[in-house]
Amino acid sequence: MDKYPSKLLEQAVEEFAKLPGIGRKSALRLVLHLLRQDNESVNRFGTSIIQLKQEIKHCSVCHNISDTDVCQICSNPARNKSAICVVENIRDVLAIENTQQFNGLYHVLGGIISPMDGIGPADLTIDSLVERTGNGETIEVILALSTTMEGDTTNFYIYRKLKDKQVKVSTLARGVAIGDELEYADEITLGRSLVNRIPYENSLGK
Amino acid sequence: MDKYPSKLLEQAVEEFAKLPGIGRKSALRLVLHLLRQDNESVNRFGTSIIQLKQEIKHCSVCHNISDTDVCQICSNPARNKSAICVVENIRDVLAIENTQQFNGLYHVLGGIISPMDGIGPADLTIDSLVERTGNGETIEVILALSTTMEGDTTNFYIYRKLKDKQVKVSTLARGVAIGDELEYADEITLGRSLVNRIPYENSLGK
Repeated sequence: MDKYPSKLLEQAVEEFAKLPGIGRKSALRLVLHLLRQDNESVNRFGTSIIQLKQEIKHCSVCHNISDTDVCQICSNPARNKSAICVVENIRDVLAIENTQQFNGLYHVLGGIISPMDGIGPADLTIDSLVERTGNGETIEVILALSTTMEGDTTNFYIYRKLKDKQVKVSTLARGVAIGDELEYADEITLGRSLVNRIPYENSLGK
Repeated sequence: MDKYPSKLLEQAVEEFAKLPGIGRKSALRLVLHLLRQDNESVNRFGTSIIQLKQEIKHCSVCHNISDTDVCQICSNPARNKSAICVVENIRDVLAIENTQQFNGLYHVLGGIISPMDGIGPADLTIDSLVERTGNGETIEVILALSTTMEGDTTNFYIYRKLKDKQVKVSTLARGVAIGDELEYADEITLGRSLVNRIPYENSLGK
């Protein structure tokens, strides 16, 4: 016999096993779990992702995912329009929003420059960022990309593009993570956190 | 703002987060992964599970999942119809099929007796099993349930139900798992494997 007693089951398991981090055993477990739910729940599950894909928009200003042409953050009058935080993707937007420490706008690049993966500056929304910062409202651009080589490359590329604009370009502080023991911090992080040491009062949080 | 920049995204993430073992962060990761796929792939993913739920049947003989009224195993003339292996669910059928050590038929109970979860004998396909074994073809019923208290209870219940039938009732060998070191085996397993020791030749495999 085939591995699965049903072609339909096999198809569903294969679709689930395509998801990142989900192998065939987990996929089968998830599919059998859904099979035990009522018809309505399963329909809701299946259509939610199809509908999302069909109807989702990207904000015309910051390129974040949105239901509307301009997203909730860009259209919120309470947000500080003078600061733009540049992030790789929407998950980073959510991560920064969760800190509740930033009230400005975002710019979602859609990735970072990575020649290994064939991603160049033209594949990202960098031109749109440069255009935005020329509107006179922007005072500061905060680069909040991963602290990897690709992130550093992208940071530097954007920094050069914005050099002639009248904007301050800053980046996230790098240093020993809160809760870390010094002996386990890597040398480069520890070294940089020494060079870029801050006044004690600033470390007290708010 | 709401946690997510889009209601549609939020709905999809919530649907994925209902799956067992998938939290909100993983759900978001999966949804964003699907968003990056083309429309056709997302449609295929969504409809595969809806179609499965709508069209799936259960084999009228063994209650396994099937595309047809009688499943591939029950309708296969090459299978040995005198042995019925009783399992809890379809995952156990796949696990036993993978061993390639069993060529008989199955009977899928759909669970095990578990008063804590409100599952009694009437919720399982035990009556159908008793009926099947009375057809004159069945010589042996192999109980292959989990070696838990619930599994033991269900085993005993089925054993009593089949007592008057002309069938041999057997159960899986319990003992030290292959590859285990003795010092780490639990006492009960080790004790039972001593009491139920087997002739050395039988341990050589085939």
